[in-house]
Amino acid sequence: MSQGQVVVLNFWPSMFGARVIMALEEKGVKFEYKEEDVFGQKTDLLLQTNPVHKKIPVLIHNGKPVCESNIILEYIDEVWKDDKTPPLLPCDPYHKAQCRFWADLIDKKVFDAGRRTWTKKGKEQEEAKRDFIETLKLLETELGEKTYFGGDGAVSMVDLVLISYYPWFHTWETIGGFSLEDHTPKLMGWVRTCLTRPAISKSLPDPLKIFDRVSQIIKVHEFFYGN
Amino acid sequence: MSQGQVVVLNFWPSMFGARVIMALEEKGVKFEYKEEDVFGQKTDLLLQTNPVHKKIPVLIHNGKPVCESNIILEYIDEVWKDDKTPPLLPCDPYHKAQCRFWADLIDKKVFDAGRRTWTKKGKEQEEAKRDFIETLKLLETELGEKTYFGGDGAVSMVDLVLISYYPWFHTWETIGGFSLEDHTPKLMGWVRTCLTRPAISKSLPDPLKIFDRVSQIIKVHEFFYGN
Repeated sequence: MSQGQVVVLNFWPSMFGARVIMALEEKGVKFEYKEEDVFGQKTDLLLQTNPVHKKIPVLIHNGKPVCESNIILEYIDEVWKDDKTPPLLPCDPYHKAQCRFWADLIDKKVFDAGRRTWTKKGKEQEEAKRDFIETLKLLETELGEKTYFGGDGAVSMVDLVLISYYPWFHTWETIGGFSLEDHTPKLMGWVRTCLTRPAISKSLPDPLKIFDRVSQIIKVHEFFYGN
Repeated sequence: MSQGQVVVLNFWPSMFGARVIMALEEKGVKFEYKEEDVFGQKTDLLLQTNPVHKKIPVLIHNGKPVCESNIILEYIDEVWKDDKTPPLLPCDPYHKAQCRFWADLIDKKVFDAGRRTWTKKGKEQEEAKRDFIETLKLLETELGEKTYFGGDGAVSMVDLVLISYYPWFHTWETIGGFSLEDHTPKLMGWVRTCLTRPAISKSLPDPLKIFDRVSQIIKVHEFFYGN
């Protein structure tokens, strides 16, 4: 499959970047990885290719940039399609709409609730934990008895979007003081199945490295602003 | 074109609902309109068809619900396609990604900044006005010399998403004390061109009716909470 020149701008802990890399790996597309330090100086390449949001991830395909992670996933699925690799989104318009609905819901609910589990305290933190666990329970119900959200044989956009949050679960569970294995054991089974896929396991950041980074951020914050 | 049974659940001032109705009108799809009072009691139909978000708009096609306005627009574009009506999204993956990018940006930036022009006061209100006008300037640049965002002959998803905010412009300008005609005259020309299309003009709510409703909400809020 002709693929042209593919570059990905990413910041290693990003769930938004991880899903782009997993999609390229699932499709067998070779790419050049460029790390951006989003807390430091943004590179000229990032500012030129995403002048509006100035955010990673950016996929640059033959010099043309595509921004916003789920838009990139759809682009990847539309450009690199063949008979060997199952699509990330189904062809049928209704099932495609359902797939987009769940991917969108994950970013609307999991990202926000997850972040609040470590940036908030007391009552607000408890609320965040409840929201996060409730969303994962909803997703567990949607998964049902299927191997993947995409069905039994194939990962879909929903799988890649949700598993992109997995490296953050350890941080949210540790700081929040809860265990997803207790609340959503079936979904944790789905995580383990996803991790047997090399395209997924090799593309995700190390959960312990994320925890270390978050712990440092919390310490710096407490040093300057108190508890 | 076979279309099946189509029902739309909407709340009349909604920009998210208006774009769905415009898309159906542009495609010539007949539908049944059902008004939902989102501030009152939600109907069983809404709760059954959008149990997760419990929000309008919902498109129900042959009994199957599709939720989230931009997901509905893509669904409409995929289901009702023929040679007579230009598509709302281009076929080429790169141009399609660009179309999705701008539609997404409008909802991320215009909705939030617009709402802040009337829910905030003082410095925060000034900031909201600046953000709103800056976003519209950016969109004016993106429009360039084209008749529509979709090109010279056809409205695209970007046109429908942006024009769905137009009925709110009068409220935001009046309360915020600014004129878009001064800041983005070319974009206001694009508004007038859009309004020559019956599918658009007949589907949008009356800007004065929205202003009345918002004025009432502000008065009630001031009565209970003060200025």
